[in-house]
Amino acid sequence: MIERIEISILLDFYGELLTSKQRDIMGLYFNEDFSLAEISELTDTSRQAIHDVIKRCHKILLDYESKLELMDKSLKLKKLKDSILKDITLLKENIDREDLYDIVSKIEREFIENI
Amino acid sequence: MIERIEISILLDFYGELLTSKQRDIMGLYFNEDFSLAEISELTDTSRQAIHDVIKRCHKILLDYESKLELMDKSLKLKKLKDSILKDITLLKENIDREDLYDIVSKIEREFIENI
Repeated sequence: MIERIEISILLDFYGELLTSKQRDIMGLYFNEDFSLAEISELTDTSRQAIHDVIKRCHKILLDYESKLELMDKSLKLKKLKDSILKDITLLKENIDREDLYDIVSKIEREFIENI
Repeated sequence: MIERIEISILLDFYGELLTSKQRDIMGLYFNEDFSLAEISELTDTSRQAIHDVIKRCHKILLDYESKLELMDKSLKLKKLKDSILKDITLLKENIDREDLYDIVSKIEREFIENI
């Protein structure tokens, strides 16, 4: 299950580097939870060929991650973001000047929306 | 000149996706400012072959950028970061409670070091 989620996340990061057919098959299998048999029927491709595409693409995605580490960097950024947002909340609860409160709120908004 | 800088930045993002020989040649040409003739001698490869590698790799790097947009996202993040850091400076100049000042300084430090 964890591996399925990981592959789904890797698809978000590197899906554009696959061919559209590979991306479609991987998306159906890992995001839409279609079975091999259903994808086979839908794409008019043998079950074995679908199985091979999934196995090969999984390897390709892991290879991209080992080189670019986008998922790893994103998870680290997520942790950092959570920690900074906690500190921002603490600031908002304690600042009594309205103009400063507004600046903190602006930072919080930009942070949530764009990072 | 701008194109040379852009390719150098693209190499930072996608260099790992090239072969080590391609990466070496691109690095020598775009980061170390070696001439085609110098790289040719250094790598024992014809000048024309070096030229072809550079041309092909430039295309490969642009293709990765068109799909993953890491450079584009990084430039946008840089602008946002500058804007948030300005607001943080403004906060530091105006907050008079030491405990809150320390929290803002911590946010600033985490922000500068990790984002």
